[in-house]
Amino acid sequence: MSIHITLKEMALPDAAYEPVTVVLDWGTTNFRAFLVKSDGSIVDEKIGDRGIQSVTKGEHARVVSEGLASWRAEYGPLDIVAAGMIGSRNGWIEMPYVPTPAAAGDLAAACRTIELAQGDRLTFLPGLTDLTAFPFPDVMRGEETQLVGFGLNRDMVIVLPGTHAKWAEIKGGRIERFRTFVTGEIYATLASHSFLSKVATAERDHATAAFAEGIALAQQECARAGGLLTRLFAVRTGWLAGTITPDEMKSRLSGLIVGWEFVEARAGGWFKEVDTIAVVGDDDLVEVYERVATAFGLELAPAPADAAIRGALEISGRRSAAAT
Amino acid sequence: MSIHITLKEMALPDAAYEPVTVVLDWGTTNFRAFLVKSDGSIVDEKIGDRGIQSVTKGEHARVVSEGLASWRAEYGPLDIVAAGMIGSRNGWIEMPYVPTPAAAGDLAAACRTIELAQGDRLTFLPGLTDLTAFPFPDVMRGEETQLVGFGLNRDMVIVLPGTHAKWAEIKGGRIERFRTFVTGEIYATLASHSFLSKVATAERDHATAAFAEGIALAQQECARAGGLLTRLFAVRTGWLAGTITPDEMKSRLSGLIVGWEFVEARAGGWFKEVDTIAVVGDDDLVEVYERVATAFGLELAPAPADAAIRGALEISGRRSAAAT
Repeated sequence: MSIHITLKEMALPDAAYEPVTVVLDWGTTNFRAFLVKSDGSIVDEKIGDRGIQSVTKGEHARVVSEGLASWRAEYGPLDIVAAGMIGSRNGWIEMPYVPTPAAAGDLAAACRTIELAQGDRLTFLPGLTDLTAFPFPDVMRGEETQLVGFGLNRDMVIVLPGTHAKWAEIKGGRIERFRTFVTGEIYATLASHSFLSKVATAERDHATAAFAEGIALAQQECARAGGLLTRLFAVRTGWLAGTITPDEMKSRLSGLIVGWEFVEARAGGWFKEVDTIAVVGDDDLVEVYERVATAFGLELAPAPADAAIRGALEISGRRSAAAT
Repeated sequence: MSIHITLKEMALPDAAYEPVTVVLDWGTTNFRAFLVKSDGSIVDEKIGDRGIQSVTKGEHARVVSEGLASWRAEYGPLDIVAAGMIGSRNGWIEMPYVPTPAAAGDLAAACRTIELAQGDRLTFLPGLTDLTAFPFPDVMRGEETQLVGFGLNRDMVIVLPGTHAKWAEIKGGRIERFRTFVTGEIYATLASHSFLSKVATAERDHATAAFAEGIALAQQECARAGGLLTRLFAVRTGWLAGTITPDEMKSRLSGLIVGWEFVEARAGGWFKEVDTIAVVGDDDLVEVYERVATAFGLELAPAPADAAIRGALEISGRRSAAAT
């Protein structure tokens, strides 16, 4: 303990000149934390396997305390900002959903800050809900922060890939509306637990011809091609026919399912050809979606890979400004 | 061993007057065999867990020999008819697919009979392929036997529910064309491995209001409802909104997915309102599909639950008649 105090005191002069924030991305299966400067640059990063599904109620504060101990020792009590599933019903505290249309300030106004035992301050960001969705209000947690980090100053449709991919419309500085597609979930469950899981070998590769052929099958408009429930079977029949090799199956499946998301989004009025959209995320799904978007005749606006961090700083910064 | 011989000799006089056939339904996860008379009535039945996925190449004959030993002891060498996955690439021998349009005689002509060590004769039935399907030939193994068992003498569309549900058109005494929908696979993987698998409690119940509401969501034609990838998320958002209880989730999911199969089938020209169709199968999925069919304005033709057995006897009977 005395060592910690010593380190902290030694670091204090520097820390005073360089305020830092911890952006906490505490998801279902892992614990990620980023130590960032006010300009968003990352100073340090921690990744652990204590996802919220492995943490029981009452245990969260201790996991944060232990997980961030070295940063606290160096920088003193921490300002922590947390978005996403940690603020859900299965997380630490259940944060409300702010209704669309919502500006960054609306999200800031709904934040909740708690004091932790060692002097840390933890700010939970709210989720977002679209009450106009049919048949039930649609919801997101975390993606709203990425949208703010991308920027709400340009009217545009933004796609956020993931297990539950989101399409959101930015209009007049606000998140106007959004819709969820369970694309990632369908891909993952079929790739791991279906007719192809015992045959398919290589992982998805969006640079392959098989991926492009999957997109093309999604785009095929002749009635004989059927709907999604029929087209999915083509991954199996193509293998039985000897046309698709086991190492092409997941790529083909991915191209087909993500392509189908775009077919449904187009039918739902989310885009038309030659529109410009942005794909926002921080993993290789961004490239997967950008390739599909291009196949659908869309132009792509550049998007930063650290939109989640930028958004967390922006929303919590507005919160602090309003409080002073 | 001597006991077996005694039993067989004692039973021979009866067996001579009452010819029996063994219809083998040897699927991926279990081994089912029916001892039937020539009129299709079931004398005895065996169910075991030696599905073909647990049997290695070269082991099949022994599993049959042991599994049917008591019947052989009683009735002498057996006539066995096997349809379905046992005749697939992952089964005992890979049987060809007969192309549509196909009559019962076309299927009979493609059968293959092998002699087994103890005097049994095992006839494998072929599968069926629709070479006109896009983008690859569609395939079935086993359902073609159920179609023959239902009867090909009436022009009609038949639905065969299952992991890979089939819609088949009967025309002029032949199976004219068919199409696969991966409905059962999507339901099963989402029910067991998705966003709802940790929340949902009760199993699917097609007699509930939740099931009917799932069908209604599939039928909803307003653009705001989105496509299948969006509608599936409503099972989660309905739960988050407090409208759907955990015990309603699987029923709602099932109504939605099977309902969506009908939406896709209607768009693909498989039926229009007030058509008469038949649902053929031997488990509770028949009731599930009949309920959905009624919601879509369809009339239902009665179908026997033992279509698979009738079809196996019919096809193998034609085979025997042609051989003599």
